[in-house]
Amino acid sequence: MLSFDITEYQERLRNVKQKMAAEGIDVLLITDPANMNYLSGYDGWSFYVHQMLIVILDEEQPFWIGRGMDARGAEYTTWLDSDHIIPYADDYVHSTVKHPMDFAAEILKEIGQARRTIGVEMDSFYFTAQSLESLRKGLPEATFKNANVLVNWVRIIKSPREIEYIRKAAVLAELAMQKAIDSIDVGVRECDVVANIYHAQISGTDQFGGDYPAIVPMLPSGEQTSTPHLTWTDSRYKDGDSVIIELAGCYKRYHCPMARTVVLNSPTQKEQDLSKVVLEGLNETLDSIKPGMTCEDVEAIWRKSIEKSGFKKESRIGYSTGLNYPPDWGERTASLRPGDKTVLKPNMVFHLIPAVWLDDCGIEISQTFRVTENGIETMTQFPRQLFIK
Amino acid sequence: MLSFDITEYQERLRNVKQKMAAEGIDVLLITDPANMNYLSGYDGWSFYVHQMLIVILDEEQPFWIGRGMDARGAEYTTWLDSDHIIPYADDYVHSTVKHPMDFAAEILKEIGQARRTIGVEMDSFYFTAQSLESLRKGLPEATFKNANVLVNWVRIIKSPREIEYIRKAAVLAELAMQKAIDSIDVGVRECDVVANIYHAQISGTDQFGGDYPAIVPMLPSGEQTSTPHLTWTDSRYKDGDSVIIELAGCYKRYHCPMARTVVLNSPTQKEQDLSKVVLEGLNETLDSIKPGMTCEDVEAIWRKSIEKSGFKKESRIGYSTGLNYPPDWGERTASLRPGDKTVLKPNMVFHLIPAVWLDDCGIEISQTFRVTENGIETMTQFPRQLFIK
Repeated sequence: MLSFDITEYQERLRNVKQKMAAEGIDVLLITDPANMNYLSGYDGWSFYVHQMLIVILDEEQPFWIGRGMDARGAEYTTWLDSDHIIPYADDYVHSTVKHPMDFAAEILKEIGQARRTIGVEMDSFYFTAQSLESLRKGLPEATFKNANVLVNWVRIIKSPREIEYIRKAAVLAELAMQKAIDSIDVGVRECDVVANIYHAQISGTDQFGGDYPAIVPMLPSGEQTSTPHLTWTDSRYKDGDSVIIELAGCYKRYHCPMARTVVLNSPTQKEQDLSKVVLEGLNETLDSIKPGMTCEDVEAIWRKSIEKSGFKKESRIGYSTGLNYPPDWGERTASLRPGDKTVLKPNMVFHLIPAVWLDDCGIEISQTFRVTENGIETMTQFPRQLFIK
Repeated sequence: MLSFDITEYQERLRNVKQKMAAEGIDVLLITDPANMNYLSGYDGWSFYVHQMLIVILDEEQPFWIGRGMDARGAEYTTWLDSDHIIPYADDYVHSTVKHPMDFAAEILKEIGQARRTIGVEMDSFYFTAQSLESLRKGLPEATFKNANVLVNWVRIIKSPREIEYIRKAAVLAELAMQKAIDSIDVGVRECDVVANIYHAQISGTDQFGGDYPAIVPMLPSGEQTSTPHLTWTDSRYKDGDSVIIELAGCYKRYHCPMARTVVLNSPTQKEQDLSKVVLEGLNETLDSIKPGMTCEDVEAIWRKSIEKSGFKKESRIGYSTGLNYPPDWGERTASLRPGDKTVLKPNMVFHLIPAVWLDDCGIEISQTFRVTENGIETMTQFPRQLFIK
């Protein structure tokens, strides 16, 4: 069931260990499900209970620690030997008296890691405040060090196989977006549009199916297009409504996100003006991106382009994307915004989404791209435009 | 857009404040998205960045703090006045130098809460180790107290309106499960079955549509039925495969989960024996449940029933369910297991799922029920049986 050759997982592990060594970390405790998957292959919807991967500098394989009933899932989906898969008993689950990190601390003691420098993902969802308290209590002689997004930074440059998966995700995103645009119409219920989106995302093509994206389709409509993260209701679209659709295709947990805006019948003057500005800025930015530029350089091109229009955009215009689990398909590393000095390198993948929201409407038109040796490859070929139906 | 009358939100808030007062908590900082929704109505897929609700004992309304672009979403979906909706700037998002909890600490200082006892949800996903560190640093004179699942325990008894929503979720679960059983067949791809499940979950009935469940459909097949939390691939079902389907209907974020097992053509003797034992235990347990019993009493009935068969079940057989967001539709409070002394009361809702997994197969047949004045109401009327196709 592995999505990659074992050698690719081992190379990733070597890259992580190099970073650990550079930062003086002997033991890395990973709870981010995407990082667990990246290094071990582990895949399952079990991240609603505590689970982790422990990478030890001088151990060939990481240890997987998780709930008893998921240990077999770890055997099916990872390249780890069964003696590196360590289940905890079920009474650790949602208990008020014991915590899975107590168990992890015991294991670390048993395998001689109680006095080492342990890196933890301080701001990863799934690494709760209690997780750290329990580890500190169980391992009083260990030194804890913030290793937040350490693995994520290794993930930022994709392998050829990863790029291949994102290309497949792009096909799924195109299918789903086309289905959305075809389905949206006056009198149609929002939930029926979303049902069609889901069907396309998952059923995919005759050649391959889709995985669940890390974020559900978001599609605010009408005035609510002034805010991006509303999902859907079962109410019906009205004449003149605009609809923002943000979705992704997902293949073997790799994402290709995409956003488009649809207006039913006649866009207002403001919507037309705004979409013209957004499109122009988006296209100018895409035309200029080259490896060697920094993330803030990319944002500056966009900023300069829209400056003349009088519209403003306060939030970042994009982020690194790829492998992930709910709640986010972003990688939490590089952002296209002022101050981000990350240098673009070949096989980084970004979702460029310079959305602008005004008081009563918003326009989102986005493009996921890969940095190439001399420019970019757009992952989708879907028309970048305001759709009028 | 509110799903409940304002008075219902206010009653919930009063119940929470009572618990806060009893535990000596002046200020409660909530990051669990379900708890935020429960008290304010807030709904949006924005929990991939830090956001919170702050309940102050002597303040009538809670404060919502979140990302700038989501503030308008808070205005649309909550009952809070706009001066209780406080956005933070976008450069707090996935930053390595500043954290949204630094901002929250500043706000708490400004509104005179810097020296109070602040309850935090220590083991809630979305309350990271860094969240607590930042708060401690920003509010050195505050006292922090563990208020984990404090709001969840208020949520455990549902109002009539909440029960009504769970009944609608049950209709959605039945539609989706029927669609799954109808679709699964030899030669069919797993992803095509899941596409149909999603379509049914979301498109719903002519009267109402569905929301996204907090967990995606899980449906391990073949040998992988020995572990519960695998999702799906695009491979095709084979003759003799068994498939475990666990899914939920979701209406306005309220869930009704359900699990069934399907065997293609002929179940093995072991599968037949195991399903007979599981069904007998499930039905005996359901027949016996009454308010006043404890959670461990319920588990004991099941345990006694299967004891004679020689099969064993180590993990809990059920949990409280209702309102939730990814990654879990369980409420993280009462579990049906030894040691849980929670007393069953009318309008508690549980997912009873006494699944048994052996080395090479597993059987899941479940029932979500509501505790009534003198017994239970099963939320779904879907046949409890092993399905053979």
